[in-house]
Amino acid sequence: MKILTISGSSRENGNTDILLSKVTDKVDNTHIRLSDYKVNPIVDQRHTGEGFTRVEDDYEKLLQQFLEHDCIVFVTPIYWFGMSGHMKLFFDRWSQYMRDDRFSFKEKVKEKQAYVIITGGSNPKITGLPLIQQFGHIFDFVGMNFTDYLIGDAVRPGDILNDFHALQKANDWNSHFLHKQNKRL
Amino acid sequence: MKILTISGSSRENGNTDILLSKVTDKVDNTHIRLSDYKVNPIVDQRHTGEGFTRVEDDYEKLLQQFLEHDCIVFVTPIYWFGMSGHMKLFFDRWSQYMRDDRFSFKEKVKEKQAYVIITGGSNPKITGLPLIQQFGHIFDFVGMNFTDYLIGDAVRPGDILNDFHALQKANDWNSHFLHKQNKRL
Amino acid sequence: MKILTISGSSRENGNTDILLSKVTDKVDNTHIRLSDYKVNPIVDQRHTGEGFTRVEDDYEKLLQQFLEHDCIVFVTPIYWFGMSGHMKLFFDRWSQYMRDDRFSFKEKVKEKQAYVIITGGSNPKITGLPLIQQFGHIFDFVGMNFTDYLIGDAVRPGDILNDFHALQKANDWNSHFLHKQNKRL
Amino acid sequence: MKILTISGSSRENGNTDILLSKVTDKVDNTHIRLSDYKVNPIVDQRHTGEGFTRVEDDYEKLLQQFLEHDCIVFVTPIYWFGMSGHMKLFFDRWSQYMRDDRFSFKEKVKEKQAYVIITGGSNPKITGLPLIQQFGHIFDFVGMNFTDYLIGDAVRPGDILNDFHALQKANDWNSHFLHKQNKRL
Repeated sequence: MKILTISGSSRENGNTDILLSKVTDKVDNTHIRLSDYKVNPIVDQRHTGEGFTRVEDDYEKLLQQFLEHDCIVFVTPIYWFGMSGHMKLFFDRWSQYMRDDRFSFKEKVKEKQAYVIITGGSNPKITGLPLIQQFGHIFDFVGMNFTDYLIGDAVRPGDILNDFHALQKANDWNSHFLHKQNKRL
Repeated sequence: MKILTISGSSRENGNTDILLSKVTDKVDNTHIRLSDYKVNPIVDQRHTGEGFTRVEDDYEKLLQQFLEHDCIVFVTPIYWFGMSGHMKLFFDRWSQYMRDDRFSFKEKVKEKQAYVIITGGSNPKITGLPLIQQFGHIFDFVGMNFTDYLIGDAVRPGDILNDFHALQKANDWNSHFLHKQNKRL
Repeated sequence: MKILTISGSSRENGNTDILLSKVTDKVDNTHIRLSDYKVNPIVDQRHTGEGFTRVEDDYEKLLQQFLEHDCIVFVTPIYWFGMSGHMKLFFDRWSQYMRDDRFSFKEKVKEKQAYVIITGGSNPKITGLPLIQQFGHIFDFVGMNFTDYLIGDAVRPGDILNDFHALQKANDWNSHFLHKQNKRL
Repeated sequence: MKILTISGSSRENGNTDILLSKVTDKVDNTHIRLSDYKVNPIVDQRHTGEGFTRVEDDYEKLLQQFLEHDCIVFVTPIYWFGMSGHMKLFFDRWSQYMRDDRFSFKEKVKEKQAYVIITGGSNPKITGLPLIQQFGHIFDFVGMNFTDYLIGDAVRPGDILNDFHALQKANDWNSHFLHKQNKRL
């Protein structure tokens, strides 16, 4: 099981990072922090005669990683009741590459397993649900399996350490991943 | 009634633009097309000692416009079951300027009226609801009034002209705005 | 187009009734007011050896009507952010009759058109969305087409007459139904 | 901590019962199975001159129990993407008793802790979210605290025993309740 973890956080050592470090403890995984890369907003040229113009940024490198793994953990703080802009830019560009023969996006994306970790304040276990539903629609649309999600209640750095249920679920996922990779606990 | 229309679309003459042109026909309004401006993703420095670093982009200009109007029409195509990345970047940066004394964001944002126009495919009147709920949470959080929303069913350029209900609602809004600005129909 | 209107309201001349009367003005339709009938809560015997016990109430008569029409308008006040208990009892019993050979439920339900009218207070155009999503899931599950929905803002009797958009949409539906039944406006 | 568990299930030893038995193992609690009681659908007489007519059923007894406990665990199978009709009837009648001076409903309901357990099929961790949102709106409206919820994936009797995460969360809640009641694990 090749695991890719994609973080949309824009601060170091944030609450999502803490959860992710628990989930991936001793687990082999490729980690991408989106804010370390240049990703331009999409320019929607789906319906122009010429199609999409080539973009000079880091996106194709990220997409390559995404397509080569079979289990993807999407990790984002809840910004304004949605995924971070960094992560939204990542998804938006799918529209461009779904149609690019070099990548076989539509075939490769199918059957990938998706996990989602989101953290935030303002009653996130309720107000974060539209975001979970959005992820649900995204994964349905491309044929990924939405295996599970984890909503953490945390605003200030370190708050997540007080969310017992979130920590426990992170540990459960960790055990699951270690098991899948034939590692001892 | 000072009306600002903010578009998150990334293509010219898209379906959201068509709806917006009907809504604003003969209506005085300031129009912002986010893709015409440089807006960087937020770097979350809320919890650092130094606070936010000054950013070199067009955001403050946009924010100034936002704060000076009392009715805001947010217009975005549905990209991956959410607002466009362009528009998400716009909201994310609120976190930075809410705390910036130069703008009095928290006072000025209250009681503004918000309208939302979204268009997309894949059964948008259902699959677009998490996005409407997200807008609802956003406006609640800052104290704006979410007056109404309009969901259009359209993918290819011009499709919206077949969505009778969307067009009619656009006309209703137009009448309402003309009336508020004391114009004859 | 054979139209059935099913009301889950428990008061006479409520706001949903007013909207429905506008929608069905001069339109041929069969009307069912669920509170006029005896409908027992389901007893879930799907997984017992003997299957479902025959129930002595009016349900089969209602179900017969439901199956014989091809366009169904579900009308319910929003009670506690959901459909009324009367209407929920109606849906719950589907689980019993889906498996009853006398009715051919699964075949007949497919491709029916569904319309939904809900009215309530407490910001219904947002807080009513989980109910709309629930209807969406129900219709998806059985293969009905969720053609459109209408959310009215109204609590006290007659309040709906102040909801301009709801009234207008009711008129639009009325025109649509008259047209489908080849009647002049 | 006085705990009341209210089950809306209509079958014996269903999946929700199994989860509930784990949650309440060795925990003092009052248990109500709604299908054991007669609860009539509400007749909405909020806006009549005379107010509500007295109803001959078991509801007041149930309401009394509800008001005397400070932690309520609502347990319902997901029927048609919502709570069971039995449970919906229970909530609908709140509208009647909120206004009945004998019960001091509005004062007593505030600050109660609410837990919710729902189980069902058809991808319940996503399709059950509108129901969770509905509970969220209900508890908000009356001022209860929505402490946590648990969504189990199970259709046939006993299926829940394969939902590892649901079982684990049930155990966590059990530990929490035992701790609150000063019992050893």
